[in-house]
Amino acid sequence: MAIRKGRTIIFDKGINIRSSAAAVGVKEGKGPLAAYFDHIAEDDMMGEATWEKAEIRLQKTALEKALSKASLSAGELDMILAGDLLAQCIASVFSARETGVPFFGQYGACSTMAQELIIGSLLCESGAFSRVAAVTSSHFCSAERQFRMPLEYGGQRTLTAQWTVTGAGAVILEENSSDIRIADAVPGVITDMKVKDTANMGAAMAPAAADTILTYLRDMNAAPSDFDMILTGDLGNVGSELLVELLRREGTDISSVHNDCGKLIFDQSEQDVHSGGSGCGCCASVLSSCIANMLYTGKLSNILFIATGALMSPVSSAQGESIPGIAHLVHIVSEKGCKG
Amino acid sequence: MAIRKGRTIIFDKGINIRSSAAAVGVKEGKGPLAAYFDHIAEDDMMGEATWEKAEIRLQKTALEKALSKASLSAGELDMILAGDLLAQCIASVFSARETGVPFFGQYGACSTMAQELIIGSLLCESGAFSRVAAVTSSHFCSAERQFRMPLEYGGQRTLTAQWTVTGAGAVILEENSSDIRIADAVPGVITDMKVKDTANMGAAMAPAAADTILTYLRDMNAAPSDFDMILTGDLGNVGSELLVELLRREGTDISSVHNDCGKLIFDQSEQDVHSGGSGCGCCASVLSSCIANMLYTGKLSNILFIATGALMSPVSSAQGESIPGIAHLVHIVSEKGCKG
Repeated sequence: MAIRKGRTIIFDKGINIRSSAAAVGVKEGKGPLAAYFDHIAEDDMMGEATWEKAEIRLQKTALEKALSKASLSAGELDMILAGDLLAQCIASVFSARETGVPFFGQYGACSTMAQELIIGSLLCESGAFSRVAAVTSSHFCSAERQFRMPLEYGGQRTLTAQWTVTGAGAVILEENSSDIRIADAVPGVITDMKVKDTANMGAAMAPAAADTILTYLRDMNAAPSDFDMILTGDLGNVGSELLVELLRREGTDISSVHNDCGKLIFDQSEQDVHSGGSGCGCCASVLSSCIANMLYTGKLSNILFIATGALMSPVSSAQGESIPGIAHLVHIVSEKGCKG
Repeated sequence: MAIRKGRTIIFDKGINIRSSAAAVGVKEGKGPLAAYFDHIAEDDMMGEATWEKAEIRLQKTALEKALSKASLSAGELDMILAGDLLAQCIASVFSARETGVPFFGQYGACSTMAQELIIGSLLCESGAFSRVAAVTSSHFCSAERQFRMPLEYGGQRTLTAQWTVTGAGAVILEENSSDIRIADAVPGVITDMKVKDTANMGAAMAPAAADTILTYLRDMNAAPSDFDMILTGDLGNVGSELLVELLRREGTDISSVHNDCGKLIFDQSEQDVHSGGSGCGCCASVLSSCIANMLYTGKLSNILFIATGALMSPVSSAQGESIPGIAHLVHIVSEKGCKG
């Protein structure tokens, strides 16, 4: 049985990450993490007729790769938890449609992967399920036309704007299946500092990340230096700077161990992404590839993964609403790292 | 600890429904269930400037009423699970924004309430949480303009079309809190019989409901006559007829115990809703009001609640995709009924 200490969930034995995989688009495949991705698309249409269908293909590919790395078929899963940025989560629905596996759609915007890791671990902890897949995706083109402008319009982007990652990540959770363990977690609370600039999501999400990280450190009586890495996703450059500053004001300095998936996925001097990457697929593909690899090989042994989401829609913003942020935290431990 | 038998989850002690409430719109308040609703709006704008904000108000009201019936404040909840039909689930996000309670957005279209009851019960069963709210809503006007036509267009509706309910339901789950118990559940699998008519959602969802019900009866070695009521939501008239027929072909006759929330909520001879009600708020408001009342008073003691969802979006339909359906089942038992 899991227990709770304040807002922090402490898993009994911990749930393991049995395998993970990432499938990404062309631009991501030219970035600094290229060597870690399980699949890099040759073009961003993925052989499909529309960007939405390409995103579905991407999400399917990530799950297939994660299953294949664990020598599993889809039918051996107890549950798929999946989410994306598209209205009515269609990338996830159509990606899971032919699996025959029970399905619960999740929506936490770019925080979805962490939400799924927490729910998935609790579903395993409850005894009802033993193997759960957590999957998310985003696609630059399907997201741009939904949230911003038609791509053909060729609009200029402000320097605070982030670039939606074309990518999908899949994680298979299962007890006693590997050396990588989800030890504890903090589900996020919606935080709204009344930021209304949809070209500056980092600013809207940073306060939520600060709240969740402070809650965890307080609940567990821990310090930033206890961790190899405090990895947010996806605050980008502007949001990361704000997060470090917000925490500094509370007497907590994470600067020496902090990094952000939105900063890691692109080469910022070469790839012109302004404030960095974003989208459900950003932190999911970084976690499922590079970070998972470093945990499996023992290069990282003790990290906090905090996925942040901007919970607005084009309609809420058009109606003058601010952008509510949320951040869910997952503490991941590698026993390999501990032993090594 | 919960266990699983086939696809059916069997809860250890069962999680109780501590309280529930429903808030509905004007038309629903003139229907046959009027006496059971906790709040009936005086007009469908609920004093707000837009239909989306009205839906947010509706969802907030349902949760407030459910909390107040349990003498609880929002701060005493461990978690809010909420979902709706709007893109990026904004009715749920903005409704939960000021609660300060951890939040996980859920998306299962009209099946969302059952999905939340299953996840919520498992979160309690895991030991991590002791009190979880499950909330959903829909609003005729916000749904029409998102999924179909601008209301001002005054489009004709086909006779197979259902009427999206303006309503919200909230359920508070907590162990050892009442005589109403969630005993077991079946999470649904996506079923797609290639129906493409978005004005006939009942036909798209009926096969999913049939699959889930058959799975449960098989897993538990049960018969329809074991239950006081097999309540689907929201297949409407067309979908209900199809469900009964699909099950009959499999040798299972549910006709004497079957009813559907989409058939119950409106007076079909007077209220001109064609094939009945639909929307996340339909089965949620019927369950949280009339059905909960009949369970609390012992008029019902043993029911299957099966919420069905049509997992399409305007974009997926415009791109020629069919409508995937899903149905999640929850077996609810009233100890009051058993004793009485």
